[in-house]
Amino acid sequence: MADPSTVPAPEFDPTEHPHRRYNPLLNEHILVSPHRMKRPWQGQVDPPSTQRLPEYDPSCYLCPGNSRSGGERLPKYTATHTFPNDFPAVLAGPAPAAPPAPHPLLTAEPVQGGCDVVIFHPRHDLTLARLSVGEIEQVVVEWTRVYVQRGMQEGNKGAIMGCSNPHPHGQVWSLSSVPQLPATELRNLLQYSLRPSEEPPSGAPRGDRGKPCLLCEYGHFERGSGERVVLEEGPWVALVPWWAVWPYEVMRASIPHSRSPSQAQVKNTVLPTNRHITSLLDLTPDERSSLSRALSRLTKKYDNLFLCSFAYSMGIHQRPTPAALDDEAEAAHLHLHFDPPLLRSASVRKFLVGFELMAEAQRDLTPEQAAKRLRELPERMPPRSGKRSAPLSS
Amino acid sequence: MADPSTVPAPEFDPTEHPHRRYNPLLNEHILVSPHRMKRPWQGQVDPPSTQRLPEYDPSCYLCPGNSRSGGERLPKYTATHTFPNDFPAVLAGPAPAAPPAPHPLLTAEPVQGGCDVVIFHPRHDLTLARLSVGEIEQVVVEWTRVYVQRGMQEGNKGAIMGCSNPHPHGQVWSLSSVPQLPATELRNLLQYSLRPSEEPPSGAPRGDRGKPCLLCEYGHFERGSGERVVLEEGPWVALVPWWAVWPYEVMRASIPHSRSPSQAQVKNTVLPTNRHITSLLDLTPDERSSLSRALSRLTKKYDNLFLCSFAYSMGIHQRPTPAALDDEAEAAHLHLHFDPPLLRSASVRKFLVGFELMAEAQRDLTPEQAAKRLRELPERMPPRSGKRSAPLSS
Ligand SMILES: [Zn+2]
Ligand SMILES: [Zn+2]
Repeated sequence: MADPSTVPAPEFDPTEHPHRRYNPLLNEHILVSPHRMKRPWQGQVDPPSTQRLPEYDPSCYLCPGNSRSGGERLPKYTATHTFPNDFPAVLAGPAPAAPPAPHPLLTAEPVQGGCDVVIFHPRHDLTLARLSVGEIEQVVVEWTRVYVQRGMQEGNKGAIMGCSNPHPHGQVWSLSSVPQLPATELRNLLQYSLRPSEEPPSGAPRGDRGKPCLLCEYGHFERGSGERVVLEEGPWVALVPWWAVWPYEVMRASIPHSRSPSQAQVKNTVLPTNRHITSLLDLTPDERSSLSRALSRLTKKYDNLFLCSFAYSMGIHQRPTPAALDDEAEAAHLHLHFDPPLLRSASVRKFLVGFELMAEAQRDLTPEQAAKRLRELPERMPPRSGKRSAPLSS
Repeated sequence: MADPSTVPAPEFDPTEHPHRRYNPLLNEHILVSPHRMKRPWQGQVDPPSTQRLPEYDPSCYLCPGNSRSGGERLPKYTATHTFPNDFPAVLAGPAPAAPPAPHPLLTAEPVQGGCDVVIFHPRHDLTLARLSVGEIEQVVVEWTRVYVQRGMQEGNKGAIMGCSNPHPHGQVWSLSSVPQLPATELRNLLQYSLRPSEEPPSGAPRGDRGKPCLLCEYGHFERGSGERVVLEEGPWVALVPWWAVWPYEVMRASIPHSRSPSQAQVKNTVLPTNRHITSLLDLTPDERSSLSRALSRLTKKYDNLFLCSFAYSMGIHQRPTPAALDDEAEAAHLHLHFDPPLLRSASVRKFLVGFELMAEAQRDLTPEQAAKRLRELPERMPPRSGKRSAPLSS
């Protein structure tokens, strides 16, 4: 073996050399091992179901007119439909007071709130990728309505939406405390907003009262660089973040001041340059439409990636409640996370085991490679073979 | 609907009311929803394989004399055997220098090191639970040897061991930076060690130079309380932590000053009251034996839980390298994490989706309920049906 001190280090190549990237939004590191893409796969393989779904499934607890899992019957709804989850993770208040801690290291706090199920469409066999842009827009309107309704109830914050198959629907969990992950993001957004402004200014939009915004700044840079951008749609950009953990994770940050005017000239004119969007409620109708178009394009790309109906988790991070007025709320920058659980193909799922569970998040494909792959995919639906990736549960 | 302000809050019951627990080791919260244990399961079900494994499998890349996944042939080893992983996540140095950041928000650092595979036993069909205590002790000795060997190489820290089936083996990843999770633990352990000592003293052991140790203090309290204790073996306790995320996660902290003398009178006499163990290398032969017995008892309990050979991830968190001498290294408190991926039965796996991926770790069964269940399980092997839970990959 050669003496390492005499071997000159090769030049750094992010597609060849293991490295760690820093995630300023979570103040965390992730390990990138791009050279490992060649190793043989030894994980679990779930064959994708090739069964074609019916438009209506009498045994589905989300189809119109059917019985919910709790027994109650659903109306024959014709558009979006929202109802409280029959097995909510949190319950309506008043929650009992916190018991005294048995030891200062063992503390607990009560939590209260509610969980809702938002059905996107009456048809059992559709997915976000198969809805029309207009139908997606109805879903965005419904998310906004639930966000406002739940957020206006005393102490409900941290509304989160997850997406799953089959039967297109999402979950909204409204808690009396901001959950761990968005709370960490908010803390880091707030901290960034308090730093002195950079000179010369980058040209990125700014937050409330001219404060720097980490995501305004980051999105502005990424849109200029393009390397991690998947698509641009009006003021919106879909990108694979520099610090993305999952191979095909896509963060969609609202970038109000577009640098590609050919795509969204109209929107740009209704947006001030310094626009900083904190929640769904701040969206203009145009911004909502372009978001719907972007969602449609992105989910079609996902379906084309593995040529199956692509299961993923989606989350919306925004101002804790529409009415929150503190500095942290003002620092919030609306963004949507997409976390596909698929690793390499329609049938290989990613589990958290070993190093990732015990030490640090790790990925093999670089964010730039993933973004390039997604960018090049078509945005029309793949031929309808009926293939679907396995459903997720939440 | 009743006006919430007029409904009196019931008394807090941790097995009934949703609450959040604080994890001081990670400075994080988790959501506990104990009332949800009754909901119907809608997740993926993998039927457990009922195939009985052979003692030697000609297609296994870990069996003695076989070809490794990289092609090289394994010796006909007869005890533990360690070799470098053919597809390591990190590579030996010197790593190329970090490129200049394209933007202050986009930083990366090179990482170097090595990955080893430690085979526990030549027989393909065994698991930790089916090894004798003496054979487990050989594994602990081998872990210690690799820890010292890798840790002595310049800049290698963060050695981590994960365990997986089939063919009993683990992984050691040695990196030039302490990975995210143990780094966060170390930071919080260090911070705790710098606080003024409590008066009156709790009687718990203390760290180096009498400094308070979060895990010495925590283990001492839990051993006295018993509520979350799964088993005690000499100076060792296996417990389900107050802040455990996975339903059957077990943290095994070394508790040098035993409060149950009936079990470990002898060990207690060789340990000073203030003993604080930072790594495997600090273990006396007796401590190593009792650790092996504890591992044997715990993994048998796991197998009895779902009556199958129980797949889990195990990690050892300890002093970053045996030679590290800074305050953080001294604050390290050796402990082993067990994270079973099974949720409810041999065939129901836990995926991270929706709320957990987007918001906060969540569990339904309380740590106290899980500990009670494990405590009551037998410590002899279940009848050998040949059932195994699905293998994990790492
Ligand atoms: Zn976010
Ligand atoms: Zn640990």
